[in-house]
Amino acid sequence: MGIINYPNKKTVFKSVTSYKNRGMVLEDDLNVTNEYYRVYDIAVIYKKPIPIQVVDVYYPARNKAVIKEAYYKTPSTTDYNGIFQGRYLDFEAKETSSMTSFPLKNINHHQIEHLNAIEKHGGIAFMIIAFQKLGEAYLVSMTLLNKYYQNQNERKSIPYKIIKENSKLIVSGYKPRLDYLKAVKELFFD
Amino acid sequence: MGIINYPNKKTVFKSVTSYKNRGMVLEDDLNVTNEYYRVYDIAVIYKKPIPIQVVDVYYPARNKAVIKEAYYKTPSTTDYNGIFQGRYLDFEAKETSSMTSFPLKNINHHQIEHLNAIEKHGGIAFMIIAFQKLGEAYLVSMTLLNKYYQNQNERKSIPYKIIKENSKLIVSGYKPRLDYLKAVKELFFD
Repeated sequence: MGIINYPNKKTVFKSVTSYKNRGMVLEDDLNVTNEYYRVYDIAVIYKKPIPIQVVDVYYPARNKAVIKEAYYKTPSTTDYNGIFQGRYLDFEAKETSSMTSFPLKNINHHQIEHLNAIEKHGGIAFMIIAFQKLGEAYLVSMTLLNKYYQNQNERKSIPYKIIKENSKLIVSGYKPRLDYLKAVKELFFD
Repeated sequence: MGIINYPNKKTVFKSVTSYKNRGMVLEDDLNVTNEYYRVYDIAVIYKKPIPIQVVDVYYPARNKAVIKEAYYKTPSTTDYNGIFQGRYLDFEAKETSSMTSFPLKNINHHQIEHLNAIEKHGGIAFMIIAFQKLGEAYLVSMTLLNKYYQNQNERKSIPYKIIKENSKLIVSGYKPRLDYLKAVKELFFD
Protein backbone atom coordinates (compact mmCIF):
# COMPACT_ATOMS: atom_id res chain seq x y z
CA MET A 1 0.00 0.00 0.00
CA GLY A 2 1.49 3.29 -1.07
CA ILE A 3 1.28 6.07 1.46
CA ILE A 4 1.06 9.65 0.33
CA ASN A 5 0.93 12.96 2.11
CA TYR A 6 -2.00 15.20 1.33
CA PRO A 7 -2.25 18.67 2.71
CA ASN A 8 -5.66 19.26 4.25
CA LYS A 9 -5.94 22.79 2.89
CA LYS A 10 -9.16 24.75 2.69
CA THR A 11 -8.24 27.80 0.65
CA VAL A 12 -11.02 29.93 -0.77
CA PHE A 13 -10.52 32.64 -3.33
CA LYS A 14 -13.22 35.19 -3.94
CA SER A 15 -12.52 36.70 -7.32
CA VAL A 16 -9.67 35.67 -9.53
CA THR A 17 -8.79 36.91 -12.97
CA SER A 18 -5.21 35.75 -13.23
CA TYR A 19 -2.94 33.13 -11.77
CA LYS A 20 -0.14 35.63 -11.53
CA ASN A 21 0.97 36.67 -8.05
CA ARG A 22 -0.54 33.78 -6.22
CA GLY A 23 0.22 30.12 -5.85
CA MET A 24 -1.93 28.15 -8.20
CA VAL A 25 -4.24 25.94 -6.26
CA LEU A 26 -5.33 23.65 -9.01
CA GLU A 27 -7.56 21.40 -6.97
CA ASP A 28 -9.61 24.25 -5.53
CA ASP A 29 -9.91 25.84 -8.95
CA LEU A 30 -11.15 22.61 -10.50
CA ASN A 31 -13.62 22.05 -7.68
CA VAL A 32 -15.26 25.45 -8.06
CA THR A 33 -15.16 25.09 -11.85
CA ASN A 34 -16.89 21.72 -11.66
CA GLU A 35 -19.48 23.16 -9.31
CA TYR A 36 -20.09 25.93 -11.83
CA TYR A 37 -20.51 23.36 -14.61
CA ARG A 38 -23.01 21.43 -12.51
CA VAL A 39 -25.01 24.45 -11.39
CA TYR A 40 -25.31 25.71 -14.98
CA ASP A 41 -26.05 22.19 -16.20
CA ILE A 42 -23.05 22.17 -18.54
CA ALA A 43 -21.52 18.93 -17.31
CA VAL A 44 -21.60 16.56 -14.34
CA ILE A 45 -17.98 16.12 -13.26
CA TYR A 46 -16.73 15.35 -9.75
CA LYS A 47 -13.45 14.83 -8.02
CA LYS A 48 -13.34 11.36 -6.55
CA PRO A 49 -12.78 11.07 -2.81
CA ILE A 50 -9.20 10.36 -1.74
CA PRO A 51 -8.87 6.61 -1.13
CA ILE A 52 -8.22 5.91 2.53
CA GLN A 53 -7.53 2.58 4.17
CA VAL A 54 -9.38 2.49 7.46
CA VAL A 55 -7.67 0.38 10.11
CA ASP A 56 -9.41 1.26 13.35
CA VAL A 57 -12.90 2.66 13.95
CA TYR A 58 -14.27 3.62 17.33
CA TYR A 59 -17.98 3.87 18.11
CA PRO A 60 -18.48 6.32 20.99
CA ALA A 61 -22.23 6.15 20.44
CA ARG A 62 -24.76 4.33 18.33
CA ASN A 63 -24.67 5.50 14.70
CA LYS A 64 -21.51 7.50 15.22
CA ALA A 65 -18.20 6.26 13.93
CA VAL A 66 -14.85 7.89 14.63
CA ILE A 67 -11.94 6.68 12.55
CA LYS A 68 -8.93 6.44 14.87
CA GLU A 69 -6.33 4.99 12.49
CA ALA A 70 -6.23 5.19 8.72
CA TYR A 71 -3.75 5.65 5.87
CA TYR A 72 -3.76 7.34 2.50
CA LYS A 73 -3.68 4.85 -0.36
CA THR A 74 -2.26 5.26 -3.84
CA PRO A 75 -5.22 5.93 -6.14
CA SER A 76 -5.80 3.26 -8.79
CA THR A 77 -7.53 5.65 -11.15
CA THR A 78 -7.58 9.37 -11.82
CA ASP A 79 -8.99 12.13 -9.66
CA TYR A 80 -11.77 13.41 -11.92
CA ASN A 81 -14.45 11.88 -14.09
CA GLY A 82 -17.93 12.62 -15.33
CA ILE A 83 -20.11 13.31 -18.32
CA PHE A 84 -20.01 16.20 -20.82
CA GLN A 85 -22.33 16.44 -23.83
CA GLY A 86 -23.12 12.75 -23.59
CA ARG A 87 -19.44 11.73 -23.53
CA TYR A 88 -17.53 10.05 -20.72
CA LEU A 89 -14.68 12.29 -19.60
CA ASP A 90 -11.73 11.36 -17.36
CA PHE A 91 -8.64 13.25 -16.33
CA GLU A 92 -5.85 13.68 -13.85
CA ALA A 93 -4.68 17.11 -12.70
CA LYS A 94 -1.16 17.90 -11.51
CA GLU A 95 0.74 21.04 -10.76
CA THR A 96 4.46 21.67 -10.67
CA SER A 97 6.60 24.42 -9.21
CA SER A 98 9.12 23.94 -12.00
CA MET A 99 9.17 26.64 -14.67
CA THR A 100 10.97 24.59 -17.28
CA SER A 101 9.47 21.10 -17.29
CA PHE A 102 6.88 18.73 -15.84
CA PRO A 103 8.52 15.84 -13.91
CA LEU A 104 6.99 12.51 -14.92
CA LYS A 105 7.44 11.07 -11.43
CA ASN A 106 4.31 13.09 -10.58
CA ILE A 107 2.21 10.60 -12.52
CA ASN A 108 1.76 7.03 -11.40
CA HIS A 109 1.68 4.14 -13.79
CA HIS A 110 -1.91 3.12 -12.94
CA GLN A 111 -3.16 6.53 -13.93
CA ILE A 112 -1.57 6.44 -17.40
CA GLU A 113 -2.91 2.91 -17.93
CA HIS A 114 -6.36 3.98 -16.78
CA LEU A 115 -6.44 7.00 -19.10
CA ASN A 116 -5.33 4.89 -22.05
CA ALA A 117 -8.07 2.34 -21.27
CA ILE A 118 -10.65 5.15 -21.20
CA GLU A 119 -9.52 6.43 -24.58
CA LYS A 120 -9.66 2.89 -25.97
CA HIS A 121 -13.26 2.52 -24.77
CA GLY A 122 -14.32 5.72 -26.52
CA GLY A 123 -14.01 8.18 -23.66
CA ILE A 124 -12.29 11.55 -23.51
CA ALA A 125 -9.02 11.26 -21.55
CA PHE A 126 -6.38 13.87 -20.85
CA MET A 127 -4.25 15.50 -18.20
CA ILE A 128 -4.33 19.02 -16.84
CA ILE A 129 -0.82 20.20 -16.05
CA ALA A 130 -0.41 23.50 -14.24
CA PHE A 131 2.82 25.47 -13.93
CA GLN A 132 2.24 27.29 -10.64
CA LYS A 133 4.91 29.94 -11.02
CA LEU A 134 4.00 30.72 -14.60
CA GLY A 135 0.30 30.87 -13.80
CA GLU A 136 -0.52 28.61 -16.73
CA ALA A 137 -2.55 25.42 -17.00
CA TYR A 138 -2.61 23.18 -20.06
CA LEU A 139 -4.85 20.42 -21.31
CA VAL A 140 -2.33 17.77 -22.36
CA SER A 141 -3.29 14.97 -24.76
CA MET A 142 -2.62 11.28 -24.18
CA THR A 143 -0.54 11.25 -27.36
CA LEU A 144 1.96 13.70 -25.88
CA LEU A 145 1.86 12.10 -22.44
CA ASN A 146 2.43 8.59 -23.75
CA LYS A 147 5.29 9.72 -25.98
CA TYR A 148 7.24 11.06 -23.00
CA TYR A 149 6.03 8.50 -20.48
CA GLN A 150 7.27 5.57 -22.59
CA ASN A 151 10.68 7.19 -23.08
CA GLN A 152 11.71 7.86 -19.51
CA ASN A 153 15.05 6.19 -20.10
CA GLU A 154 15.80 9.19 -22.33
CA ARG A 155 14.37 11.95 -20.15
CA LYS A 156 12.24 12.00 -17.01
CA SER A 157 10.22 15.12 -17.69
CA ILE A 158 8.25 16.90 -20.40
CA PRO A 159 9.80 20.27 -21.31
CA TYR A 160 7.55 23.26 -20.68
CA LYS A 161 8.20 24.42 -24.25
CA ILE A 162 6.88 21.13 -25.68
CA ILE A 163 3.73 21.29 -23.53
CA LYS A 164 3.16 24.93 -24.49
CA GLU A 165 3.54 24.21 -28.20
CA ASN A 166 1.48 21.00 -28.27
CA SER A 167 -1.30 21.57 -25.74
CA LYS A 168 -4.33 23.77 -25.24
CA LEU A 169 -3.84 26.61 -22.77
CA ILE A 170 -6.78 26.62 -20.37
CA VAL A 171 -8.27 30.07 -20.00
CA SER A 172 -8.57 31.17 -16.39
CA GLY A 173 -11.18 33.70 -15.43
CA TYR A 174 -13.86 34.58 -12.97
CA LYS A 175 -16.72 32.24 -13.92
CA PRO A 176 -15.83 29.52 -14.50
CA ARG A 177 -12.46 29.88 -12.87
CA LEU A 178 -10.62 27.40 -15.07
CA ASP A 179 -12.67 26.71 -18.19
CA TYR A 180 -11.10 23.43 -19.25
CA LEU A 181 -14.25 22.27 -21.05
CA LYS A 182 -13.66 25.04 -23.60
CA ALA A 183 -10.35 23.33 -24.40
CA VAL A 184 -12.07 19.91 -24.38
CA LYS A 185 -14.62 21.18 -26.88
CA GLU A 186 -11.96 22.53 -29.23
CA LEU A 187 -9.89 19.38 -29.01
CA PHE A 188 -12.50 16.61 -28.96
CA PHE A 189 -15.70 18.01 -30.46
CA ASP A 190 -14.86 20.49 -33.23
CA MET B 1 -21.79 16.48 7.84
CA GLY B 2 -23.65 13.20 7.84
CA ILE B 3 -21.95 10.36 9.62
CA ILE B 4 -22.52 6.82 8.50
CA ASN B 5 -21.35 3.46 9.72
CA TYR B 6 -19.56 1.26 7.25
CA PRO B 7 -18.53 -2.24 8.09
CA ASN B 8 -14.91 -2.82 7.16
CA LYS B 9 -15.57 -6.31 5.85
CA LYS B 10 -13.20 -8.24 3.67
CA THR B 11 -15.18 -11.26 2.57
CA VAL B 12 -13.90 -13.32 -0.32
CA PHE B 13 -15.90 -16.00 -2.08
CA LYS B 14 -14.16 -18.51 -4.27
CA SER B 15 -16.82 -19.95 -6.50
CA VAL B 16 -20.40 -18.88 -6.46
CA THR B 17 -23.21 -20.04 -8.65
CA SER B 18 -26.18 -18.89 -6.64
CA TYR B 19 -27.04 -16.33 -4.00
CA LYS B 20 -29.08 -18.88 -2.15
CA ASN B 21 -27.79 -20.02 1.22
CA ARG B 22 -25.44 -17.17 1.80
CA GLY B 23 -25.79 -13.54 2.69
CA MET B 24 -25.56 -11.48 -0.43
CA VAL B 25 -22.55 -9.28 -0.30
CA LEU B 26 -23.39 -6.94 -3.09
CA GLU B 27 -20.36 -4.70 -2.83
CA ASP B 28 -17.88 -7.56 -3.04
CA ASP B 29 -19.78 -9.09 -5.93
CA LEU B 30 -19.75 -5.82 -7.84
CA ASN B 31 -16.06 -5.29 -7.15
CA VAL B 32 -15.03 -8.67 -8.53
CA THR B 33 -17.44 -8.24 -11.44
CA ASN B 34 -15.96 -4.85 -12.30
CA GLU B 35 -12.48 -6.32 -12.09
CA TYR B 36 -13.58 -9.04 -14.51
CA TYR B 37 -14.97 -6.41 -16.89
CA ARG B 38 -11.68 -4.51 -16.75
CA VAL B 39 -9.44 -7.53 -17.18
CA TYR B 40 -11.43 -8.72 -20.20
CA ASP B 41 -11.59 -5.17 -21.55
CA ILE B 42 -15.40 -5.12 -21.53
CA ALA B 43 -15.81 -1.92 -19.56
CA VAL B 44 -13.90 0.39 -17.21
CA ILE B 45 -16.06 0.78 -14.11
CA TYR B 46 -14.86 1.47 -10.57
CA LYS B 47 -16.36 1.93 -7.16
CA LYS B 48 -15.50 5.37 -5.88
CA PRO B 49 -13.63 5.57 -2.58
CA ILE B 50 -15.77 6.23 0.49
CA PRO B 51 -15.61 9.97 1.25
CA ILE B 52 -13.84 10.59 4.53
CA GLN B 53 -13.34 13.89 6.31
CA VAL B 54 -9.84 13.93 7.74
CA VAL B 55 -9.54 15.98 10.91
CA ASP B 56 -6.16 15.06 12.35
CA VAL B 57 -3.06 13.69 10.65
CA TYR B 58 0.12 12.66 12.43
CA TYR B 59 3.53 12.37 10.75
CA PRO B 60 5.66 9.88 12.66
CA ALA B 61 8.27 10.09 9.89
CA ARG B 62 8.95 11.99 6.72
CA ASN B 63 6.63 10.90 3.90
CA LYS B 64 4.47 8.86 6.23
CA ALA B 65 1.06 10.11 7.27
CA VAL B 66 -1.15 8.44 9.86
CA ILE B 67 -4.71 9.68 10.07
CA LYS B 68 -5.62 9.88 13.76
CA GLU B 69 -9.13 11.33 13.53
CA ALA B 70 -11.56 11.19 10.64
CA TYR B 71 -15.26 10.76 9.93
CA TYR B 72 -17.36 9.14 7.24
CA LYS B 73 -19.20 11.69 5.12
CA THR B 74 -22.48 11.33 3.27
CA PRO B 75 -21.59 10.72 -0.40
CA SER B 76 -22.75 13.47 -2.78
CA THR B 77 -22.87 11.13 -5.76
CA THR B 78 -23.28 7.43 -6.39
CA ASP B 79 -20.85 4.63 -5.63
CA TYR B 80 -20.07 3.42 -9.15
CA ASN B 81 -19.31 5.01 -12.47
CA GLY B 82 -17.36 4.35 -15.62
CA ILE B 83 -17.52 3.71 -19.33
CA PHE B 84 -19.15 0.88 -21.30
CA GLN B 85 -19.20 0.72 -25.10
CA GLY B 86 -18.41 4.42 -25.32
CA ARG B 87 -21.26 5.40 -22.97
CA TYR B 88 -20.99 7.00 -19.55
CA LEU B 89 -22.55 4.73 -16.94
CA ASP B 90 -23.47 5.58 -13.35
CA PHE B 91 -25.27 3.64 -10.66
CA GLU B 92 -25.91 3.14 -7.00
CA ALA B 93 -26.14 -0.33 -5.44
CA LYS B 94 -28.18 -1.16 -2.36
CA GLU B 95 -29.24 -4.34 -0.64
CA THR B 96 -32.09 -4.99 1.72
CA SER B 97 -32.91 -7.80 4.13
CA SER B 98 -36.60 -7.26 3.52
CA MET B 99 -38.31 -9.91 1.40
CA THR B 100 -41.34 -7.83 0.51
CA SER B 101 -40.15 -4.31 -0.36
CA PHE B 102 -37.19 -1.96 -0.78
CA PRO B 103 -37.27 0.86 1.81
CA LEU B 104 -36.66 4.22 0.14
CA LYS B 105 -34.84 5.59 3.20
CA ASN B 106 -31.87 3.57 1.87
CA ILE B 107 -31.40 6.14 -0.89
CA ASN B 108 -30.32 9.68 -0.21
CA HIS B 109 -31.72 12.62 -2.08
CA HIS B 110 -28.36 13.64 -3.63
CA GLN B 111 -28.04 10.27 -5.25
CA ILE B 112 -31.42 10.43 -6.97
CA GLU B 113 -30.69 13.97 -8.14
CA HIS B 114 -27.28 12.91 -9.40
CA LEU B 115 -28.67 9.93 -11.33
CA ASN B 116 -31.36 12.11 -12.92
CA ALA B 117 -28.70 14.65 -13.95
CA ILE B 118 -26.66 11.86 -15.55
CA GLU B 119 -29.65 10.66 -17.54
CA LYS B 120 -30.38 14.22 -18.64
CA HIS B 121 -26.80 14.58 -19.91
CA GLY B 122 -27.09 11.43 -22.01
CA GLY B 123 -25.57 8.91 -19.64
CA ILE B 124 -26.84 5.54 -18.52
CA ALA B 125 -28.19 5.75 -14.96
CA PHE B 126 -29.85 3.10 -12.82
CA MET B 127 -29.88 1.40 -9.46
CA ILE B 128 -29.02 -2.14 -8.51
CA ILE B 129 -31.28 -3.37 -5.74
CA ALA B 130 -30.51 -6.71 -4.14
CA PHE B 131 -32.86 -8.71 -1.94
CA GLN B 132 -30.39 -10.59 0.26
CA LYS B 133 -32.73 -13.25 1.55
CA LEU B 134 -34.24 -13.96 -1.84
CA GLY B 135 -30.84 -14.08 -3.51
CA GLU B 136 -31.99 -11.75 -6.27
CA ALA B 137 -30.55 -8.54 -7.67
CA TYR B 138 -32.40 -6.24 -10.07
CA LEU B 139 -31.40 -3.44 -12.37
CA VAL B 140 -34.00 -0.80 -11.59
CA SER B 141 -34.71 2.06 -13.98
CA MET B 142 -34.85 5.73 -13.05
CA THR B 143 -38.46 5.81 -14.25
CA LEU B 144 -39.52 3.31 -11.60
CA LEU B 145 -37.30 4.84 -8.92
CA ASN B 146 -38.53 8.37 -9.52
CA LYS B 147 -42.16 7.28 -9.53
CA TYR B 148 -41.86 5.85 -6.02
CA TYR B 149 -39.34 8.37 -4.73
CA GLN B 150 -41.58 11.32 -5.56
CA ASN B 151 -44.58 9.70 -3.86
CA GLN B 152 -43.19 8.95 -0.43
CA ASN B 153 -46.15 10.61 1.20
CA GLU B 154 -48.14 7.65 -0.14
CA ARG B 155 -45.69 4.85 0.64
CA LYS B 156 -42.08 4.75 1.78
CA SER B 157 -40.92 1.65 -0.09
CA ILE B 158 -41.09 -0.04 -3.46
CA PRO B 159 -42.88 -3.40 -3.29
CA TYR B 160 -40.74 -6.40 -4.26
CA LYS B 161 -43.48 -7.47 -6.67
CA ILE B 162 -43.30 -4.16 -8.54
CA ILE B 163 -39.50 -4.34 -8.81
CA LYS B 164 -39.68 -7.96 -9.99
CA GLU B 165 -42.27 -7.15 -12.66
CA ASN B 166 -40.67 -3.92 -13.92
CA SER B 167 -36.92 -4.53 -13.67
CA LYS B 168 -34.25 -6.71 -15.21
CA LEU B 169 -33.12 -9.61 -13.03
CA ILE B 170 -29.32 -9.65 -12.95
CA VAL B 171 -27.94 -13.10 -13.65
CA SER B 172 -25.47 -14.27 -11.05
CA GLY B 173 -22.85 -16.80 -11.95
CA TYR B 174 -19.21 -17.68 -11.70
CA LYS B 175 -17.56 -15.32 -14.19
CA PRO B 176 -18.61 -12.61 -14.04
CA ARG B 177 -20.23 -13.02 -10.66
CA LEU B 178 -23.02 -10.51 -11.21
CA ASP B 179 -23.35 -9.74 -14.90
CA TYR B 180 -25.22 -6.44 -14.68
CA LEU B 181 -23.86 -5.24 -18.03
CA LYS B 182 -25.93 -7.94 -19.72
CA ALA B 183 -29.01 -6.24 -18.28
CA VAL B 184 -27.62 -2.82 -19.24
CA LYS B 185 -27.18 -4.01 -22.83
CA GLU B 186 -30.72 -5.33 -23.04
CA LEU B 187 -32.19 -2.20 -21.51
CA PHE B 188 -30.08 0.58 -23.03
CA PHE B 189 -28.52 -0.76 -26.22
CA ASP B 190 -30.93 -3.17 -27.92
